[in-house]
Amino acid sequence: MLWTPIASTGPRPLVLIGHGGGQHKKEWGVLSRAIPYVASCGFAVAAIDAPGTGDRPEHAEIQRLVAILQEREAAGEPAGPAWPALCETVASQLVPDWQTTLDALQKLDSVGDNQPVGYYGLSQGGEMGIRLVAAEPRITAAVLGLIGSEWLTDDAARITIPVEFVLQWDDEGSPRDSVMKLFDALGSTEKTLHANPGSHYRVPSFEIDSSVRFFARHLGTAGSS
Amino acid sequence: MLWTPIASTGPRPLVLIGHGGGQHKKEWGVLSRAIPYVASCGFAVAAIDAPGTGDRPEHAEIQRLVAILQEREAAGEPAGPAWPALCETVASQLVPDWQTTLDALQKLDSVGDNQPVGYYGLSQGGEMGIRLVAAEPRITAAVLGLIGSEWLTDDAARITIPVEFVLQWDDEGSPRDSVMKLFDALGSTEKTLHANPGSHYRVPSFEIDSSVRFFARHLGTAGSS
Repeated sequence: MLWTPIASTGPRPLVLIGHGGGQHKKEWGVLSRAIPYVASCGFAVAAIDAPGTGDRPEHAEIQRLVAILQEREAAGEPAGPAWPALCETVASQLVPDWQTTLDALQKLDSVGDNQPVGYYGLSQGGEMGIRLVAAEPRITAAVLGLIGSEWLTDDAARITIPVEFVLQWDDEGSPRDSVMKLFDALGSTEKTLHANPGSHYRVPSFEIDSSVRFFARHLGTAGSS
Repeated sequence: MLWTPIASTGPRPLVLIGHGGGQHKKEWGVLSRAIPYVASCGFAVAAIDAPGTGDRPEHAEIQRLVAILQEREAAGEPAGPAWPALCETVASQLVPDWQTTLDALQKLDSVGDNQPVGYYGLSQGGEMGIRLVAAEPRITAAVLGLIGSEWLTDDAARITIPVEFVLQWDDEGSPRDSVMKLFDALGSTEKTLHANPGSHYRVPSFEIDSSVRFFARHLGTAGSS
């Protein structure tokens, strides 16, 4: 998916949005960010499906790992090694997919190859984002969060771009201490942690406005339309 | 000090700004907030000196306590009981002074008595702000922070208005764990923690912009001039 302003042409800053786990490129979490980024800032916004989601074919290994995780959750057991294995399996395809997507986007007149690029992703979109941002020098600002995977510490330390990091105070899936450890590990000089009460899924809508201003500050604006 | 827009009249939302420790009502930390609140939001903004500072007379007990604290700091010792005693001494005058000031301000045509009121204060301005906001129902939104005094927990729990709470990640005077405990104690349904790297005095300037939007969201705007 690529969103651009209706009434303007030419190159413009680009924001890549990574969707949440079990979601897809047209989910509300993506759209609710894409619309203000395009309308308020004049950015181009792109989203792709993770392997095995949305319009992509079923993925046997991902299905197997998700089934294990669902069984363990139903039994009240901790996720165990299937969780890092799932993250690794998704990332091994999704990170190169994002880089290929960015190559293709930068050939379009509506994006261009010398414009700033941002990344937005929480939860699975944050897990994948930390890996992508650590690997991809074209991305110059990122909103990340709702993730505290200990295996991401080294990737986080390699990130040096400005980061807005989102934490939910009562997030059982990503406990606040683990999210703060990852925030602490980020190598960025400018990094800002936004913590709000509530569970994983209750990020307040004013954080969308905050991300608009974060990207406007770091990517510039291309005018609205 | 009362700042209002030059070219407009009539009642408008009001923000009270509490200055930092050892500072006064015209310090840069106050002015740098007052100017955008007036210019961007059309608010009235007021600041008063804490007892013993700025244009107020010297205060023997405060001078005695500050001298003890300076001696202990020079000797590399922890602040000890002089610190809560200083906070208590300042607050016992400053909180009623703020309430009297608010009474007077609400009689002015340029403020009015039925407009929303906000409070902004970090560090000593946060210490005093938590006490004031807990005691003063006319204040309906507050930016607070850079403070983690354990004796403020009960006051924090009585606060139920929206709060933006500021934390500096490497603040030796107000360690992050103590600031987070106070954030956790706040009784507000809407409370948001903004944490940034650096020492007590290095709050990034984008947090001023964030406070503008926080107050605009909760107090409304009176148009700019």
